[in-house]
Amino acid sequence: MNDKLKGQLDFLIEADKMKSILRQTLLVDKSRRENDAEHSWHIALMAMTLAEYVPFEIDLDRVIRMALVHDLVEIYAGDTFAYDTAGYQSKDERENEAADKLFSLLPMEQSSVYRALWEEFDAMQTPDAIYTSAIDRLQPFINNTLTDGHTWVLHGVTVDQIYKRMSIVKEALPDLWEYVESVIDENLKAGRIKPAPSDPSV
Amino acid sequence: MNDKLKGQLDFLIEADKMKSILRQTLLVDKSRRENDAEHSWHIALMAMTLAEYVPFEIDLDRVIRMALVHDLVEIYAGDTFAYDTAGYQSKDERENEAADKLFSLLPMEQSSVYRALWEEFDAMQTPDAIYTSAIDRLQPFINNTLTDGHTWVLHGVTVDQIYKRMSIVKEALPDLWEYVESVIDENLKAGRIKPAPSDPSV
Repeated sequence: MNDKLKGQLDFLIEADKMKSILRQTLLVDKSRRENDAEHSWHIALMAMTLAEYVPFEIDLDRVIRMALVHDLVEIYAGDTFAYDTAGYQSKDERENEAADKLFSLLPMEQSSVYRALWEEFDAMQTPDAIYTSAIDRLQPFINNTLTDGHTWVLHGVTVDQIYKRMSIVKEALPDLWEYVESVIDENLKAGRIKPAPSDPSV
Repeated sequence: MNDKLKGQLDFLIEADKMKSILRQTLLVDKSRRENDAEHSWHIALMAMTLAEYVPFEIDLDRVIRMALVHDLVEIYAGDTFAYDTAGYQSKDERENEAADKLFSLLPMEQSSVYRALWEEFDAMQTPDAIYTSAIDRLQPFINNTLTDGHTWVLHGVTVDQIYKRMSIVKEALPDLWEYVESVIDENLKAGRIKPAPSDPSV
């Protein structure tokens, strides 16, 4: 086997580690925490299924590929919880080092394509990245909703934090926004989501 | 939310169950058995990474979508182990019933597209299905290789069974065939794969 193909197989074997990178989200049946490989599959399927609702032009095939590679750097950098402010400070540096290490297993051109997809996702500026990010936030939101607000309760997340994080869904999937707002409202009333620190109802 | 969108969300929530359908394959780190969601993600990434080696024309974007949906019916039908002869006798009926139940959550047109992708995969006749099937067999083969032939040993799989199952890799990824043959040979010599029943070396 030549070095190029060997590098690609090494990359695909290394990718197996995504199955052991745990996220905060629970499975819908509450049996355990979800991992990055499952999450990546779920959002790719979700992107494929909900694409008709995106009000701007996207390249769905690029979106699906972006979903498949968007969390690969977490093999070395770990999953940074969405509402972990301290973790986010070191996230960029950790993930850049991880990308150097992981993508260098691939031949130059493929390495550039995968890295560019990940960087585009992370920057959240292009239509494809905006839709992929919206789905990346909607999937754990739905799982949270169906598991008694598990990660919101566990980490004492406040309503303003959730609105800030979910606002991209309003842009990419406006038809789902009413549902998102109603879920947030319901969980705020049930005490699973905390009021905003400055909220007079505190 | 209208019924159409609600059906699509119900489908995507039901898809979460793929994370609990266990396969025979172990993770590379041997910590546990792999599930269908992880497997589907892994083969989609693998198809994306190895496409340049396919000696016939394929539509890679269709292949990736096929990989994402190819095991969905197992949510209700369960995973049938590759070398389980008895299980394979009832597989078609179980999977057809499962497809009726699962895909009917989706709007008619989308339901037809997903079901057609799955049926095309299952029939293994088109170039896209041949490549997806080859990858679907290569991924557990590699994981098996890296976990001391776990499922071959556990189920007493014979070398002729493995050659029959893996022959599609020779067609779709001929550059990997030498590697596949050398792995089979090595594991046969090590006693992790059984000789063929009619093999004079038995």
